[in-house]
Amino acid sequence: MMVQGRPMRTIWLAEDGWAVEIIDQTQLPHAFVTRRLETLEDAAHAIRTMLVRGAPLIGATAAYGLALALRGNASDETLARAGETLLATRPTAVNLRWAIEDVTGRMQDLAPADRAAAAYRRAAEICDEDVEICRSIGRHGLAVIERIWEAKGRKGRVNLLTHCNAGWLATVDWGTATAPIYMAHDTGIPVHVWVDETRPRNQGAALTAWELGEHGVAHTVIADNVGGHLMQHGEVDLCVTGTDRTTAAGNVCNKIGTYLKALAAQDNAVPFYVALPGPTIDWTLGDGLGEVPIEQRDGRELSEVSGRTADGRMETVRITPEASPVANYAFDVTPARLVTGLITERGVCPASSEGLRSLYPERAGAGQTP
Amino acid sequence: MMVQGRPMRTIWLAEDGWAVEIIDQTQLPHAFVTRRLETLEDAAHAIRTMLVRGAPLIGATAAYGLALALRGNASDETLARAGETLLATRPTAVNLRWAIEDVTGRMQDLAPADRAAAAYRRAAEICDEDVEICRSIGRHGLAVIERIWEAKGRKGRVNLLTHCNAGWLATVDWGTATAPIYMAHDTGIPVHVWVDETRPRNQGAALTAWELGEHGVAHTVIADNVGGHLMQHGEVDLCVTGTDRTTAAGNVCNKIGTYLKALAAQDNAVPFYVALPGPTIDWTLGDGLGEVPIEQRDGRELSEVSGRTADGRMETVRITPEASPVANYAFDVTPARLVTGLITERGVCPASSEGLRSLYPERAGAGQTP
Repeated sequence: MMVQGRPMRTIWLAEDGWAVEIIDQTQLPHAFVTRRLETLEDAAHAIRTMLVRGAPLIGATAAYGLALALRGNASDETLARAGETLLATRPTAVNLRWAIEDVTGRMQDLAPADRAAAAYRRAAEICDEDVEICRSIGRHGLAVIERIWEAKGRKGRVNLLTHCNAGWLATVDWGTATAPIYMAHDTGIPVHVWVDETRPRNQGAALTAWELGEHGVAHTVIADNVGGHLMQHGEVDLCVTGTDRTTAAGNVCNKIGTYLKALAAQDNAVPFYVALPGPTIDWTLGDGLGEVPIEQRDGRELSEVSGRTADGRMETVRITPEASPVANYAFDVTPARLVTGLITERGVCPASSEGLRSLYPERAGAGQTP
Repeated sequence: MMVQGRPMRTIWLAEDGWAVEIIDQTQLPHAFVTRRLETLEDAAHAIRTMLVRGAPLIGATAAYGLALALRGNASDETLARAGETLLATRPTAVNLRWAIEDVTGRMQDLAPADRAAAAYRRAAEICDEDVEICRSIGRHGLAVIERIWEAKGRKGRVNLLTHCNAGWLATVDWGTATAPIYMAHDTGIPVHVWVDETRPRNQGAALTAWELGEHGVAHTVIADNVGGHLMQHGEVDLCVTGTDRTTAAGNVCNKIGTYLKALAAQDNAVPFYVALPGPTIDWTLGDGLGEVPIEQRDGRELSEVSGRTADGRMETVRITPEASPVANYAFDVTPARLVTGLITERGVCPASSEGLRSLYPERAGAGQTP
């Protein structure tokens, strides 16, 4: 997508053809800074300190991290140690493990002299594959937006609401929930996005708002409390969110607060879509409401807020009483009954076992709840 | 309620018997500071800069402000000018106008020499009347909590969820939504309150958490996004909020985000109660969803967050991109169908025209929607 008027991805090869460059997402939205990764340790540091975040981007960064390691020394031992180092950065990230195992597996049968170049090629492929998945999600989601635009008689604008950052910053390009939005914008449909601030980590206020703004998409940041009111007043035509994990029955685990927006959408007959790459469907989970373990994170994410002071310094301020306990649940599960449709790289389907199996027939039989 | 181990109100006469003292609420929860008001200008400043907030407390402060003005000079001219000065501090505050007109009206027939003492007496009465209304709300709401406690077999704890600050800090004592909670706590029912942070102004995180903590009520601060997830998992027995305005049909205008919690409560069969003093019922409004004008406030309340740094300074930080527009809607309207009951000083009634008229029969005929 566009940044400061030129197209970018979230990770790319430097002009010298071997170093890797990324956007330092911890400094967004206040400063746009790119970083150069030259070693395995640079890549591990970027993942660990969340300079990069979002499952697809973490996987891509790990793949390049292996390439950087093999460039110096392509022995089996280096490969194994590099994999361990990278895996330890975010141990629960599924894409991270997948990318490391994928690249490592392909290195086994290669002579050490061929490994670095092969790892670079595979890392580039992983990036391109992610872009293609997101582009396909975008095309299928675009059709949904086009239908709404037609239904409005091509008048005014299409108002979308999104929660958290399922944007291109979390992927290599396009994003998931944002891919249809960028495509609609690029094809000339006047879209406007209500961006949920997304407490407590403020990914909407910091990241989604920034990336939409840089690409030139009209948007307005709102408190997470506002969406219901807007839907009551006809100010939302469509909700689109991403998801961390979708169960085989179509229940959607996503950033905390998604469920409340889905309830408001249902109460006001606003379509509620969820965009997801097929690999994030967890075919082992059915109902999911009780099954999905919900991560509880450090309470300081809620009690402390970071941002930029009027004179340009980054500061962190506490907003709760010292003595008050806080709880910080990271995700919730939106029941399939509240979801109008799932937008995948293979098409749009109802949020149900039948719907998902119609797009992923090779999974027939999965997710049957007893 | 209790602060640092001793009972307090939010406004009281100083030991010298003529100055008025208040809590500087702008410094909560980070510092507990009381302020002495000695002049009309002190009182106006306290209201204008929100050292005091909450409709009942603003009214009480204005009444004492008139008393302070009359203490120096009890002429008709002083009285009129003092009323104008106070009214200009928060021109849309209904209680402010009411208190000024009430006190001013009672001064008209008095000799100037008797006015100051009479104004002090009336200001004290206004405070006591507010305390009595809140105490009655508390008693009626306590019965609701007691029934839930009995239904749980008097085991574990009663988990409540509240939004914003309808606490004693907004009134003279007890609060509205908090009155039943304090009474339940004081009678030995183990209550625990999930406190919605309440973006964008963080009244829950700053004020409700502070006052519950000082009184010794168990509580946990959560992001506004969390309540639905907690209700899905049986962690909320009861929601109680306040309201700025209730229509004659039982629709509830309250802090933005209340509607989302009411939807989640309905979806999970959690009782959702609203506590209100009868005077906040707007008998001229019926449906209310479209009729209630929703205030839009300064976007900086959303884009900037204030709090205390690790080294104890107060700072304000920006959390959104400079170029991103923000919208700041202050209230939403929760339809009566989502409200289990209204807790008033006269008892608990269904959120409906019939319910309200059963408690306020003198209003029979009001709020009939055509």
